[in-house]
Amino acid sequence: MKVDGTPYRSLWWDKTQGALQIIDQRWLPHDFRIQQLDTLAEYCEAITGMHVRGAPLIGATAAYGMALAARLDPSDTALDQAWERLHATRPTAINLRWALDRCRAALLALPEAARADAALQLAHDIADEDVEINRSIGLHGFEIIKEIASRKPAGEPVRLLTHCNAGWIATVDWGTATSPMYHAHDAGIPIHVWVDETRPRNQGALTAWELGSHGIPHSYITDNAGGHLMQHGEVDMVIVGTDRTTRSGDVCNKIGTYLKALAAKDNGVPFYVALPSPTIDWTVSDGVAEIPIEERAVQEVSHVQGTLPEGGIGTVQVTPKGCPVGNPAFDVTPSRLVTGLITERGVCEASEAGLAALFPDLASPTGAA
Amino acid sequence: MKVDGTPYRSLWWDKTQGALQIIDQRWLPHDFRIQQLDTLAEYCEAITGMHVRGAPLIGATAAYGMALAARLDPSDTALDQAWERLHATRPTAINLRWALDRCRAALLALPEAARADAALQLAHDIADEDVEINRSIGLHGFEIIKEIASRKPAGEPVRLLTHCNAGWIATVDWGTATSPMYHAHDAGIPIHVWVDETRPRNQGALTAWELGSHGIPHSYITDNAGGHLMQHGEVDMVIVGTDRTTRSGDVCNKIGTYLKALAAKDNGVPFYVALPSPTIDWTVSDGVAEIPIEERAVQEVSHVQGTLPEGGIGTVQVTPKGCPVGNPAFDVTPSRLVTGLITERGVCEASEAGLAALFPDLASPTGAA
Repeated sequence: MKVDGTPYRSLWWDKTQGALQIIDQRWLPHDFRIQQLDTLAEYCEAITGMHVRGAPLIGATAAYGMALAARLDPSDTALDQAWERLHATRPTAINLRWALDRCRAALLALPEAARADAALQLAHDIADEDVEINRSIGLHGFEIIKEIASRKPAGEPVRLLTHCNAGWIATVDWGTATSPMYHAHDAGIPIHVWVDETRPRNQGALTAWELGSHGIPHSYITDNAGGHLMQHGEVDMVIVGTDRTTRSGDVCNKIGTYLKALAAKDNGVPFYVALPSPTIDWTVSDGVAEIPIEERAVQEVSHVQGTLPEGGIGTVQVTPKGCPVGNPAFDVTPSRLVTGLITERGVCEASEAGLAALFPDLASPTGAA
Repeated sequence: MKVDGTPYRSLWWDKTQGALQIIDQRWLPHDFRIQQLDTLAEYCEAITGMHVRGAPLIGATAAYGMALAARLDPSDTALDQAWERLHATRPTAINLRWALDRCRAALLALPEAARADAALQLAHDIADEDVEINRSIGLHGFEIIKEIASRKPAGEPVRLLTHCNAGWIATVDWGTATSPMYHAHDAGIPIHVWVDETRPRNQGALTAWELGSHGIPHSYITDNAGGHLMQHGEVDMVIVGTDRTTRSGDVCNKIGTYLKALAAKDNGVPFYVALPSPTIDWTVSDGVAEIPIEERAVQEVSHVQGTLPEGGIGTVQVTPKGCPVGNPAFDVTPSRLVTGLITERGVCEASEAGLAALFPDLASPTGAA
């Protein structure tokens, strides 16, 4: 999407340099910096150190890492080693492993001499596939926004609320939850986005930066505010992303999503989840009972990063010294609170039947993939 | 309550100095500082500058301010002027006006020579009445905690969740939502308190400081976490305070309270509101429709204060430069989500009938006081 008028992806291949360029997201939303990755160590550090973040973007970055490895040494041993090094960067990231497995399997099937070119092409394909999935999600979500707009007086904005950053910088382009917003805005449908801050890591600031850079009207609000806004008719639709959705439509997403879904239900506000099919976990049915929730570092809660009055980036501690902290990072929104799942193949009910109808090729008849 | 073993009130009269001592809360939770108020200007600055905060504490501080004024010049004119100066410090605070009106009316009815002593005694009375109301709320809430504890295996803590700081430092002593916690802890019932951060102003850090200073086990969590904890059976009871409760039991409180009430309802967790009777607004019935919600300064959301790594207190900006911000400060929890109101006269249903039965002397038959 656009940054001050110029279209960007979160990563792109620079043919002149023969190297990958990424947006170094550690500095966002305060500074826009581009970084070139030249060594496997730099690729690993970019993933571990969260220069890139978001499951699809991590997967695509790793695929380019495999391409670099194949160019330097296309042997089976070297590719296995590259797989290991890249996988160790974020061992619990499902997309990362999926991308690495796909690359290794494809390359090992080829003669060594063909691997370097094939690896680069495969990385391009993985990146392009992500863009295409997200573009399709956006088109389907756009239809819902258009329908809401058609019921409003002309020119009155459709008010959307989103949580966390399921934006283009968490993917290769478009984002998931943001893709319908970009489509609507670019098509001239007026929208206004309420952006949840999303403590503890304040990814709402990234979403606000994205939307602002692309020219979409928005307001940054605390995570506490959404219920009040819905009570007073200030929200027409909620769209969020997901880290993992069960085959029955239970949605695991950033902590706090469940509270927004409850408020949406209580106020008759439609609550949609933008769901790329690779994020569906066909092996799990009951999200609340079966999905383990990661407890993350207490410093994420006790300390807050931002820009200092004198310039530069700094950190303050908001809790009393020695204060015990709890930090569950995700929660599960039961399918009963979800109006619909917006996938790359269309919108379906958040249920086993709904998902199976759209993805008969992925859903097994017993429900266990 | 106790600070590192020593019992404190939020304010106290120092007979030797002939002056009021307050805890200067601007430095909490990072530093515990006591301030003596010697001039009316200092009283005004203490209220305006939020050295003291919380409706009951502001009211009591203002009463001592009137006592100082009466000692310096007990004339009608001087008392009127003191009323004006103190009232202008926080013109929308209902308790402040109530305390000032009560002092002025009582003093103007007396001969000038009797006013100074009477004013000081009245300030003592107002402070003591607040303590007594909160102590009583605590005893009634304690009964609920005891009942929950009796259904648990011996020694297993009752897990409470609270939002914002309805603690002893927002009152003269005990607090409202915290009073049952202090009673339970002091009586040897094991409890553990989940403390909501309460963005944007992070009053959860004050609650954590209070509880930690008194020795009560607790964990500081983001506002997003409570729903997940309730889903997983980690919360036995929610207790919050209130800024204003309608005669029908709709509860206006710090933004985000409504979301916790929804989660409590969805998970069968009892949701109680600690409600001193002066906080009941008998003139209002439908809280969502009738209570105007204050939109506060954007800097509360865009900037976060805390301790700097090198020591001292600093501020960082978390939003992108120029990012639009919304900051509604309160929300309304409809009575249907409230299990009960814990008042100084006992616990009642959150309804017009429930409140009228406990407070027949305050509730008018038509519902309008």
